[in-house]
Amino acid sequence: MRKVAIIGVGHVGSTTAYTLISKNIVDELVLFDSNENILKAELNDLMDGQMEQNHQVRLIGADLAELKDTDVIIFSAGDISIFEGNPDRFAELNLTKTIVEEWAPKIKASGFDGIILNITNPCDVITQYLQELTGIPRERVFGTGTSLDTGRMKHAVSRNLNVHPSAIDGYVIGEHGESQFVAWSSVRIGGVPITETLSEENLTALDAAARDGGWVTFRGKGYTSYGIAIQAARIAEAILNNNHLVVPVSHFHSVEGCYAGSPAKVSQQGITGRFTLTLSDAEQEKWQHTIQTIHSMHATI
Amino acid sequence: MRKVAIIGVGHVGSTTAYTLISKNIVDELVLFDSNENILKAELNDLMDGQMEQNHQVRLIGADLAELKDTDVIIFSAGDISIFEGNPDRFAELNLTKTIVEEWAPKIKASGFDGIILNITNPCDVITQYLQELTGIPRERVFGTGTSLDTGRMKHAVSRNLNVHPSAIDGYVIGEHGESQFVAWSSVRIGGVPITETLSEENLTALDAAARDGGWVTFRGKGYTSYGIAIQAARIAEAILNNNHLVVPVSHFHSVEGCYAGSPAKVSQQGITGRFTLTLSDAEQEKWQHTIQTIHSMHATI
Amino acid sequence: MRKVAIIGVGHVGSTTAYTLISKNIVDELVLFDSNENILKAELNDLMDGQMEQNHQVRLIGADLAELKDTDVIIFSAGDISIFEGNPDRFAELNLTKTIVEEWAPKIKASGFDGIILNITNPCDVITQYLQELTGIPRERVFGTGTSLDTGRMKHAVSRNLNVHPSAIDGYVIGEHGESQFVAWSSVRIGGVPITETLSEENLTALDAAARDGGWVTFRGKGYTSYGIAIQAARIAEAILNNNHLVVPVSHFHSVEGCYAGSPAKVSQQGITGRFTLTLSDAEQEKWQHTIQTIHSMHATI
Amino acid sequence: MRKVAIIGVGHVGSTTAYTLISKNIVDELVLFDSNENILKAELNDLMDGQMEQNHQVRLIGADLAELKDTDVIIFSAGDISIFEGNPDRFAELNLTKTIVEEWAPKIKASGFDGIILNITNPCDVITQYLQELTGIPRERVFGTGTSLDTGRMKHAVSRNLNVHPSAIDGYVIGEHGESQFVAWSSVRIGGVPITETLSEENLTALDAAARDGGWVTFRGKGYTSYGIAIQAARIAEAILNNNHLVVPVSHFHSVEGCYAGSPAKVSQQGITGRFTLTLSDAEQEKWQHTIQTIHSMHATI
Repeated sequence: MRKVAIIGVGHVGSTTAYTLISKNIVDELVLFDSNENILKAELNDLMDGQMEQNHQVRLIGADLAELKDTDVIIFSAGDISIFEGNPDRFAELNLTKTIVEEWAPKIKASGFDGIILNITNPCDVITQYLQELTGIPRERVFGTGTSLDTGRMKHAVSRNLNVHPSAIDGYVIGEHGESQFVAWSSVRIGGVPITETLSEENLTALDAAARDGGWVTFRGKGYTSYGIAIQAARIAEAILNNNHLVVPVSHFHSVEGCYAGSPAKVSQQGITGRFTLTLSDAEQEKWQHTIQTIHSMHATI
Repeated sequence: MRKVAIIGVGHVGSTTAYTLISKNIVDELVLFDSNENILKAELNDLMDGQMEQNHQVRLIGADLAELKDTDVIIFSAGDISIFEGNPDRFAELNLTKTIVEEWAPKIKASGFDGIILNITNPCDVITQYLQELTGIPRERVFGTGTSLDTGRMKHAVSRNLNVHPSAIDGYVIGEHGESQFVAWSSVRIGGVPITETLSEENLTALDAAARDGGWVTFRGKGYTSYGIAIQAARIAEAILNNNHLVVPVSHFHSVEGCYAGSPAKVSQQGITGRFTLTLSDAEQEKWQHTIQTIHSMHATI
Repeated sequence: MRKVAIIGVGHVGSTTAYTLISKNIVDELVLFDSNENILKAELNDLMDGQMEQNHQVRLIGADLAELKDTDVIIFSAGDISIFEGNPDRFAELNLTKTIVEEWAPKIKASGFDGIILNITNPCDVITQYLQELTGIPRERVFGTGTSLDTGRMKHAVSRNLNVHPSAIDGYVIGEHGESQFVAWSSVRIGGVPITETLSEENLTALDAAARDGGWVTFRGKGYTSYGIAIQAARIAEAILNNNHLVVPVSHFHSVEGCYAGSPAKVSQQGITGRFTLTLSDAEQEKWQHTIQTIHSMHATI
Repeated sequence: MRKVAIIGVGHVGSTTAYTLISKNIVDELVLFDSNENILKAELNDLMDGQMEQNHQVRLIGADLAELKDTDVIIFSAGDISIFEGNPDRFAELNLTKTIVEEWAPKIKASGFDGIILNITNPCDVITQYLQELTGIPRERVFGTGTSLDTGRMKHAVSRNLNVHPSAIDGYVIGEHGESQFVAWSSVRIGGVPITETLSEENLTALDAAARDGGWVTFRGKGYTSYGIAIQAARIAEAILNNNHLVVPVSHFHSVEGCYAGSPAKVSQQGITGRFTLTLSDAEQEKWQHTIQTIHSMHATI
């Protein structure tokens, strides 16, 4: 039985739950939320939402005892609504760190022995804080990191060059936030470097499109849900199915001393491999900058 | 190319879009919404939400010319937020009928030649009004009707008797609203009448659970989305795949002179068959009552 | 991790493996076959056959130690080729019972603690023999029984009445063999008894079509594979997903003292519920006949 | 309605049909075979094999009139059994070219206006011959080419380095046959060149493993089916879904004057883009050699 718990079923958590259910990734799903009415509503609606499937997920309401044999905790707590019109990662951190402080001891006390996948923002810093407060080994606590941003880069390139996203091999790395960047020097389409096809001007525009992708969604609907849900779901699947997927999650970089997004291998044991891209000099600078941004944010905790 | 248009991408419309995409039911999806920022946000988030799939859906922003070769229009317009805490179907009708009046001429003018599947509430009356104002033949305009309510009945029975929903054969019929009822006399589990297993008291409790299912969701999150999305998606699939699915949609009953929910056969040509359940005397009375309710609501337009 | 072992990867076993893989039902799959070259070939081809999926199954070659934590054994051993042109269930039994005698002690010795799902024919008798020789509790050893025959009945009705198979509620029961029969008195379409729609003559013709369905396939290609694979796969899914699916498997009827096909509830614990159809007098006679057929076959072991 | 025809339903054609059905890639499927009993058997077994799905495919027996509005013809005719133990591509060509000569005029006469995807071997030469005899534009006739071989390379690398196949970006190119080769100089894992991880000795061993993959399967079961079926199915999906997938199909290289496998973009219009890998000098030599091999085989027709 593949068992996942989701802590926080706002738009992101609940859409992730629906995705896990409709893509047949999980057998048992435990949901937690600070708002009991929302929790009941989501349990009920998700149950209605699987009526026509062969595969049925056992939906379980908030019960800490269920964490003991849970394989993956998806951490998506945080009231995103207060940031509408004010996307300030520091203000967000002030709130979300307290949620980590509330949950870390509960997770520890539950006897939980699986993997934590964090979505809550600021993703890199909150992932690190979750690891620090739970004491779970670093390879077993990681965040969705730049997986969504990489998806958005592929979305932008796919639209621009009219090509299936799977043909685009490359990554957005660093902070899941403003200092992230596309490592264009290693992006390829159909095995051919993208730098042979598009000018630097074009690439800069695509970089902006990828970064701004989230804001278009956020400004319009007040949150983003489908893009992040699909990334969280396939990372959870990689853990449950132990399939060694390579995905740019936020994991601990021992050289840098912090969590940041870059391609890593995900399996039932957590992070079991890391891939270090060869960066151009300009990209190397961006990397240093994004690492510093993460460090300075972590320092404010 | 399987082409669907969704008119109104609030929570219901956008979750339906996501379901059509993630279950590989559609190849082209045209989205319309009166709020342009929400429309842009959903187009963007849905595109991000299909990044990891083999199957890719072409997402198209509001363009009436696209309706000409669209196979199915899903009508899900209506600002559900004004009904929070006040679930008055008549008040709702006052608003949603004006949206039908706005959209029907546009659909007519577009040269649209497919099927309309209505979700907007009050479902039966709005479906009828859509048919009347567009002039599209009755068998090609129908509503999700009691499909969601039937799903909720199966959910309640499935939970109560610990049995897979597919083993439950039976229907909720009538209005998609308070006067609906479960035709218990014909509900069976594994081929055995449910009346042999459960007392009338039990059945009444399950009936209430099914009817209240929506309110639990609504009270908690302010809308329902997953349950209705999965029903709308599989009905759309039945049309596109021409698979003659039997589902309790809201279709025109010539004997009663109005739209109401009961099992019908759905295919590319629309409604191609109807199934008339044998009702008990008490159920027959409930049927008359629900038909009158729909008539009286339609009369207020 | 959902773990299944398949014993015997001829056409049926290997198509079942492919179905489990492509429908995302299993995470680990252990294959056994008496022919080592065929085993290697299937392991290799199945691995090639999952190259483009997110979900990856760990394929494991014949290793009895793997059975210890296997959830489901699918037993599909038996050289069907010797029966080409001579579909004699007794001759088949003479061969397949020896395969059971070979495998039962190995399964026992392995510490296997899961569910056995038997496909090997004659299905009812071989299932019973597997239970007897392994000593595993009866509710945890069952066969695909009349699930395929029920599928074929739905196929025949679906074609005849142009209706989606899911709308047909009903069962073929008894022996998975010539003495099986459709319990027409309880078959319904869209909640309406089929006897209201079709004459007895029509039903007899459909009965024959369902029973002969297998022979059309067998005569043409020398075996049947897709129909049985899909049934075995969804029963395996019901066990692994613990979803309480109702399906006409071959399970032990204590009143009759033998295994036979009729609707039962399937979950992780095996058979957890039975549904007894109300039969007409004529059907009751057919039931007695099919039970006697199974008994007389079992007596020859 | 997504409509595919399969010409030749031996093991490859029928497994491709089953894959198209179970992965929900097609709505209508027309099957042809020179052996009428096999055709009937497969139509029947495939219908049984979709009984438990929401999505239902209309299965149609051999009817040339159906080709007129067919979107994709999958050409998989050829009696592979005569090559057991004697995998001689020239002998194969002698047989399969006559099948092309039989089918090309029928396809022309039918008014078929879609895409031909050829599987029949020797793939590159037969694809070219099909194009020549039907006169359909080159971009609308192509073969599965080295897609299966690329899959096998990924299978070998995935096993060797314990990494998900999707992380491996690279291609096998040239003839679908002995002269094919892996373009290792451009293979990457997680964005990192494989040449940084594995020695040339390792790569040569993996190259052999990929090439021999087919023989392991062929020697054991007398044919290969799942690996090729999954590739054919996703290429058919790319055409039907118009998703611009990049895949190493066998397409016409105007510089070389023949069909050969290399990455190309596949959509509803056929081949709409080509990707030219930068080859090392040694790879460039292999490319010349494989092109000559294809030319010399084509010359014997």
